[in-house]
Amino acid sequence: ILSKRIVVLSGDGIGPEVCQEAVRALKAVADKFGHEFHFDYQLMGACAIDATGDPLPASTLDACRAADAVLLGAIGDPKYDNDPTAKVRPEQGLLRLRKSLGLYANIRPVTAYEQLLEHSPLKKDRIQGTDMLIFRELTGGVYFGEKGRNEDGSAYDNCTYSRFEIERIAHRAFRAAETRRGKLTLVDKANVLETSRLWREVVQEISLQYPKVLVDYLFVDNAAMQVILNPKQFDVILTENMFGDIISDEASVIAGSLGLLPSASIGDEAALFEPIHGSYPQAKGKGIANPIATILSAAMMLEHFGLPEEAASVRKAVDNALEQGVLTPELNAKAPYTTEQVGSFVAYGI
Amino acid sequence: ILSKRIVVLSGDGIGPEVCQEAVRALKAVADKFGHEFHFDYQLMGACAIDATGDPLPASTLDACRAADAVLLGAIGDPKYDNDPTAKVRPEQGLLRLRKSLGLYANIRPVTAYEQLLEHSPLKKDRIQGTDMLIFRELTGGVYFGEKGRNEDGSAYDNCTYSRFEIERIAHRAFRAAETRRGKLTLVDKANVLETSRLWREVVQEISLQYPKVLVDYLFVDNAAMQVILNPKQFDVILTENMFGDIISDEASVIAGSLGLLPSASIGDEAALFEPIHGSYPQAKGKGIANPIATILSAAMMLEHFGLPEEAASVRKAVDNALEQGVLTPELNAKAPYTTEQVGSFVAYGI
Ligand SMILES: CC(C)[C@H](C(=O)O)[C@@H](O)C(=O)O
Ligand SMILES: CC(C)[C@H](C(=O)O)[C@@H](O)C(=O)O
Repeated sequence: ILSKRIVVLSGDGIGPEVCQEAVRALKAVADKFGHEFHFDYQLMGACAIDATGDPLPASTLDACRAADAVLLGAIGDPKYDNDPTAKVRPEQGLLRLRKSLGLYANIRPVTAYEQLLEHSPLKKDRIQGTDMLIFRELTGGVYFGEKGRNEDGSAYDNCTYSRFEIERIAHRAFRAAETRRGKLTLVDKANVLETSRLWREVVQEISLQYPKVLVDYLFVDNAAMQVILNPKQFDVILTENMFGDIISDEASVIAGSLGLLPSASIGDEAALFEPIHGSYPQAKGKGIANPIATILSAAMMLEHFGLPEEAASVRKAVDNALEQGVLTPELNAKAPYTTEQVGSFVAYGI
Repeated sequence: ILSKRIVVLSGDGIGPEVCQEAVRALKAVADKFGHEFHFDYQLMGACAIDATGDPLPASTLDACRAADAVLLGAIGDPKYDNDPTAKVRPEQGLLRLRKSLGLYANIRPVTAYEQLLEHSPLKKDRIQGTDMLIFRELTGGVYFGEKGRNEDGSAYDNCTYSRFEIERIAHRAFRAAETRRGKLTLVDKANVLETSRLWREVVQEISLQYPKVLVDYLFVDNAAMQVILNPKQFDVILTENMFGDIISDEASVIAGSLGLLPSASIGDEAALFEPIHGSYPQAKGKGIANPIATILSAAMMLEHFGLPEEAASVRKAVDNALEQGVLTPELNAKAPYTTEQVGSFVAYGI
């Protein structure tokens, strides 16, 4: 039997509710396939600030380091958002966690689910068949550059990228493209930014090692249009941290609900899995949060563990929920199911 | 009679064709209303590099400084795009022009034209009635910060904003919101960036002077979703240079064609008007480029000159072209008109 330690960072808002359903799915997988998953619940985000004053307590970080994988719900609380002077914020916990664990590759699949095309704000013929995989660099760039205030009251944020930071994620993106449709699109702003020119140089160099992958380059402003105008043109998208934040959230609208989209954040020694949606505090405790994104994040975790069959069984159970309309209100307004009902249906189907 | 000097920077690709039609419209306005417009054609962009080695020759800049307004077509040539080592690029001309003329406020209206709703990639009910005005800061931020390479081969781009840079465009955006639906949305990434926190502080302060304007704040990743999910929620959007580049191009998909969207770039002493589309080199000389975005940019120029009636007559003529389907192929595939036919129809209707 396979044994894995999973740290669960339920976080804030709807985080705990959706994590509970992903854990339910993982337990169903353990039962069915005879594995052992140990769940260790730790604090991060606003809940950790409330409890300890620190959005990422040392005990949480230690537990994550020792774990085989981390499952994250969502973090964030509106009480911190409109206070630009707040010194401690939930997001700092997440950013420090990414950096400390070296989670440099954020990977987000975006697919248009056949059963849910009508829920998309985009017309059906534009999105049907969309299947892209976005690689966002997650531990570099302007997020982690020097930042502060100057004496004259101005503010600054510095963006830096080294060749190494670009190379390691680029190799992952190229390898993914090889197993998919063989296309990689680098999104940058090489007509303006020096860091983008370095990205383009490094990617051009690396592309020689992947002769089967067709590479193209898009400026980020153009990419922001193309993702909506013609999402089917994309296979693998590779981009830096800030652009990836924007473009991947933009692309998420294709699916018709944020509640469907999982992500993996991978490093050479650690891996974290989380839905792309936020903590959605207005929905907290109402049973209306869609657990599917978190459940599919757990499926990505299983793939990361080298358990493709187990992952496939989770995906099949999710497909079945989509098929049968066992869905939370945003996708099934007429006869909605609760978070727990959706989670139980999926777990039962595993 | 009113007399104005207008510098025309036709630029590259389809730039000359679309400028010609905007000039035709301006001449029709001059005739009808008894004004005098002098047109002075100057080089900028790839055409200027080809002719002089410099994307913004001194003579061009001098002419722009002396003019009452600048009309720009588009710049850019693919031969520069995939060569990250090219030292001279067309875009440098545009960036230097913006900086030299102090064009700090880029203003882009995005409307869903009733006649063209079917051309949008978005579903009709999502976009019908959309009417937003985007204020993008244009002479600061990462575009104009220090950039370069370090000895270890890494690259950097620095982003800086001063209070003054934020204040002057914020006041313009608030004043615009007062004359519209009274809502202003600041798009930033204040949960990560120090410059964004400064933007939020300054906008919060300034908002006290505009008690009739309702202010809200959106993180740029969320904004990238909201622009597609629910564009009608926006009235005035205010944002920094890089985010404005991305979000305004993204929002342009709502209209169903890039060829419809004008922009103004305004400073305290100069003003430039240009379509938001690029130089579209594949279409050059084919008569298929839509001149409406450039013609509507000329209408914004007329408003800037304090000629609202004249601007309205241009807009009415454009509406008529939309109504009658006198449109280039991307909007009228069955019975398309050429660039010149559309331009002549509009000019005739003025
Ligand atoms: C919460 C925030 C710091 C974070 C980011 O910008 O990376 C989030 O938007 C995300 O994409 O995971
Ligand atoms: C050509 C490029 C430098 C420019 C920019 O990024 O500002 C363009 O995309 C624009 O939006 O006008």
